Amino acid sequence: MTQLTNEILHQVITSRPENSHKGTFGRAVLIGGNTQYGGAILMSAEACIKSGAGLTTVITAEKNHNPLHTRLPEAMVLDFSETALIHDVLKTADIILIGPGLGLDKDALSLLKQTLKNQRQDQWLIIDGSAITLFSNEHFSLNYPAQTVFTPHQAEWERLSGLDFIHQTDENNRAKQVLLGAKIVLKSHRTTIYDEAVAYYHNPLGNPGMATGGMGDTLAGMIAGFLAQFEKNIDTIGAAVYLHSLIGDELAKENYVVLPTAISSALPHYMKKYADERN
Amino acid sequence: MTQLTNEILHQVITSRPENSHKGTFGRAVLIGGNTQYGGAILMSAEACIKSGAGLTTVITAEKNHNPLHTRLPEAMVLDFSETALIHDVLKTADIILIGPGLGLDKDALSLLKQTLKNQRQDQWLIIDGSAITLFSNEHFSLNYPAQTVFTPHQAEWERLSGLDFIHQTDENNRAKQVLLGAKIVLKSHRTTIYDEAVAYYHNPLGNPGMATGGMGDTLAGMIAGFLAQFEKNIDTIGAAVYLHSLIGDELAKENYVVLPTAISSALPHYMKKYADERN
Amino acid sequence: MTQLTNEILHQVITSRPENSHKGTFGRAVLIGGNTQYGGAILMSAEACIKSGAGLTTVITAEKNHNPLHTRLPEAMVLDFSETALIHDVLKTADIILIGPGLGLDKDALSLLKQTLKNQRQDQWLIIDGSAITLFSNEHFSLNYPAQTVFTPHQAEWERLSGLDFIHQTDENNRAKQVLLGAKIVLKSHRTTIYDEAVAYYHNPLGNPGMATGGMGDTLAGMIAGFLAQFEKNIDTIGAAVYLHSLIGDELAKENYVVLPTAISSALPHYMKKYADERN
Amino acid sequence: MTQLTNEILHQVITSRPENSHKGTFGRAVLIGGNTQYGGAILMSAEACIKSGAGLTTVITAEKNHNPLHTRLPEAMVLDFSETALIHDVLKTADIILIGPGLGLDKDALSLLKQTLKNQRQDQWLIIDGSAITLFSNEHFSLNYPAQTVFTPHQAEWERLSGLDFIHQTDENNRAKQVLLGAKIVLKSHRTTIYDEAVAYYHNPLGNPGMATGGMGDTLAGMIAGFLAQFEKNIDTIGAAVYLHSLIGDELAKENYVVLPTAISSALPHYMKKYADERN
Repeated sequence: MTQLTNEILHQVITSRPENSHKGTFGRAVLIGGNTQYGGAILMSAEACIKSGAGLTTVITAEKNHNPLHTRLPEAMVLDFSETALIHDVLKTADIILIGPGLGLDKDALSLLKQTLKNQRQDQWLIIDGSAITLFSNEHFSLNYPAQTVFTPHQAEWERLSGLDFIHQTDENNRAKQVLLGAKIVLKSHRTTIYDEAVAYYHNPLGNPGMATGGMGDTLAGMIAGFLAQFEKNIDTIGAAVYLHSLIGDELAKENYVVLPTAISSALPHYMKKYADERN
Repeated sequence: MTQLTNEILHQVITSRPENSHKGTFGRAVLIGGNTQYGGAILMSAEACIKSGAGLTTVITAEKNHNPLHTRLPEAMVLDFSETALIHDVLKTADIILIGPGLGLDKDALSLLKQTLKNQRQDQWLIIDGSAITLFSNEHFSLNYPAQTVFTPHQAEWERLSGLDFIHQTDENNRAKQVLLGAKIVLKSHRTTIYDEAVAYYHNPLGNPGMATGGMGDTLAGMIAGFLAQFEKNIDTIGAAVYLHSLIGDELAKENYVVLPTAISSALPHYMKKYADERN
Repeated sequence: MTQLTNEILHQVITSRPENSHKGTFGRAVLIGGNTQYGGAILMSAEACIKSGAGLTTVITAEKNHNPLHTRLPEAMVLDFSETALIHDVLKTADIILIGPGLGLDKDALSLLKQTLKNQRQDQWLIIDGSAITLFSNEHFSLNYPAQTVFTPHQAEWERLSGLDFIHQTDENNRAKQVLLGAKIVLKSHRTTIYDEAVAYYHNPLGNPGMATGGMGDTLAGMIAGFLAQFEKNIDTIGAAVYLHSLIGDELAKENYVVLPTAISSALPHYMKKYADERN
Repeated sequence: MTQLTNEILHQVITSRPENSHKGTFGRAVLIGGNTQYGGAILMSAEACIKSGAGLTTVITAEKNHNPLHTRLPEAMVLDFSETALIHDVLKTADIILIGPGLGLDKDALSLLKQTLKNQRQDQWLIIDGSAITLFSNEHFSLNYPAQTVFTPHQAEWERLSGLDFIHQTDENNRAKQVLLGAKIVLKSHRTTIYDEAVAYYHNPLGNPGMATGGMGDTLAGMIAGFLAQFEKNIDTIGAAVYLHSLIGDELAKENYVVLPTAISSALPHYMKKYADERN
């Protein structure tokens, strides 16, 4: 087991190439936010855009379009029902994140099915929140497990792995990860990342001020933003996980509770800091 | 009569346990905000989330969902009409706040009835604003008075207690509190908290710059946030009341009028300050 | 002619009485904002609330409710069509402002008629923007001219007074003011206030960075906020006019263009500064 | 070829005349923002208003009105369908910007047609984004090419000029500009401005942190704001292009990614700085 350190940030957060354009930094598509949990996908979108994804489209219930545009005019939007446009947008995506606030209804299921079925060899897929529950309930399978990331908290991991809390030991988790093939970001007060059975990361950072609704949605959005622009591998996921907690720890020095949106706001500053230190 | 001092903050605002998750800090459900007074429930929700409640759901008229998500994506939402989902959400609540901007119509009455009827032994209930008026008019009773908090201003206290302004003496208020059994936060330019006849708190802080619409909604939200995460007792209520005024007094040093939302924004900073001083 | 100076701020912006509540600082009702010009009434409402009015209700087209609540949850709202509720709210108002973004259609006309007809002896009325044009076109009259304020720019003053630009001399303006009986705030790059023929104020402040859409809506909201809480007289109007320009001049030291909403944001700070200097 | 330097800012950003009003600084009309790309026109509007246009009306799909008012109450709004009002507003415009987030459907085409057909001799027209694609596809022509500005990125320039990427040399671009007659702002990591065959500007500023969705919408809005208030010529366009990158470079010193809206927020400060240095 490797402990994540600042080194992962220096390694992953590179200076951007001079001759580049927004396409250089990836096209991210985020799917989630039903009528009850719209805030979740808003928080993912903020994390994705503020971590530097080039172009971000959010597929969400129409009632969430307005708050999204108001908070973040940088995002593009589609309603869950715009099937043809969704198809087109998914085809051009480099990264797809599905799940934050998605819920468990028929629409959610249908979007997850479509996303899983159409995943291409060069597309990375992040499955979060209720999409993990749906995936587990329906016994779906993956086209490209090695390019798929699950981001469960412990109850979602129980559904996905069949391991109850007591049996969620590192050894058991590693065995289950091998069976799934996908990368696992198992969120807890000390998040652990599982990949390829033996190589995995442990995150020593984070604090209880971050234990508030939306923190996981923000992490999922950061992973999407990082995979959109940096090398698509486990280190990049590790850097997103580590920076999320590092910013949370910094903010907790001055704040009893750390709001998820405060982490996203701080992203451009902290990413700059570690990109500069690298050089 | 005990005067509230900084000591109540040091006593109540504890360091969070390291091994915790968002559920550790409570599930709050806030009910209010009709089509005319939607801002009230927005202000309660901001105070609740920014004081550190783990998970917050707001049940409010649909027109308020959008401003709520825009200001505060951390909240979850339900419309007044989603009866089945409301039932489910209320069942899982640790704290329920009903009243800010709720109004007096049939929907309001029906929500109050449902909330009162289903209060469980382990649920705390805060009754504020127009819900106090409805409660008084309809002569409702409480399942668990000792776990119920009323937060009337003086006119609402008149309705609830039958005491007109002149007769709202400490002695009379205490007698009426005994009859009701519930805790009373009687708001005025010097707020007083009544509980168990003889033990009560007097708040020496507050200033006339805080005399602006929404200040009470913010206090109600803070009480909900504090009860969600700290010990459920009169001291925790006292700490919320005292901190609300303390922040108001700090902000009034630089501002002629203190906006309620400015108090909520300052919550994470001031709570951190008093948690640190304690240690 | 008297030049306004800092003295008017020291005179008007008094310390608030300790034993007070939100009702002490007045109930303001603002009417305006149709489907095209909704931003105008939003800016008036911000100025009114941030200058310290106790309770503010905004009557505006429903599409503006959401942006209003999002920017300013402290406000209450009603739609133009809620005739019965509007009637009730207008009855309790201390100050009514009508006009910002109101437009010239049938609804606008009907609201202006209702407002003029029901003005009570103890209610002040501010008539701004398109309401001035409607008032002029329809040759309406006033119940209580001495408690009515018109806030025209020069083209609106032409409509109201019949004086074309060339004939808008101080002498002519004063004569027309006598005929109308109402107070006149004639906005230009050097705003002048006319009242009782011989006593009037000239504002020496202001700058061309303030020449941007919404600046007048903000001034109208400030006059409403000031009249709601301070003595209802020409000095209070003068203080609002002077402070509006003074803040604009301060902000223009660092900004090429001064946004109206930036003036409102600075109100609590500047009002505190002049209230303190007074003492 | 001339390199843009700070000198262009000192030359263009003049002190405002003392005796002025909002009309002095121009009426801008911005057309764009369909149901999928609403954020684009929001970003243009922010850049236009914060660079100092006197009065700004935004014609956009109705779902975008609310986010626009919330972010920017200074703007006025019309829906795409309000044909008669659009006609009136376009007649009074000094500057029209069409294209950001407009899309390619029938409504978009019809608005572009109407705009092109009604361009008056004293009106400047900026054609951006999908409006460039539509213009190219439909082989439209211009009433007043010398008062028209195209702001293509390289793929849009290919559509407009027929030059594929490899053939987009300075010489070829200049030849195509002569044929079109309009001014060309060819956006790339080093933007170039073409006009009158031999006189053109090259922008040495900009950085890869600016490679994010919405940066071009912001530039288009700045060009509209600059042309609304300053002399209508190629130097003013050059100043907008240069300042956009200069602010981006300043913000990139502290931020890994530069959000387009952060550039707009900084406009009043930077314009003041260069106006002061000039004097």
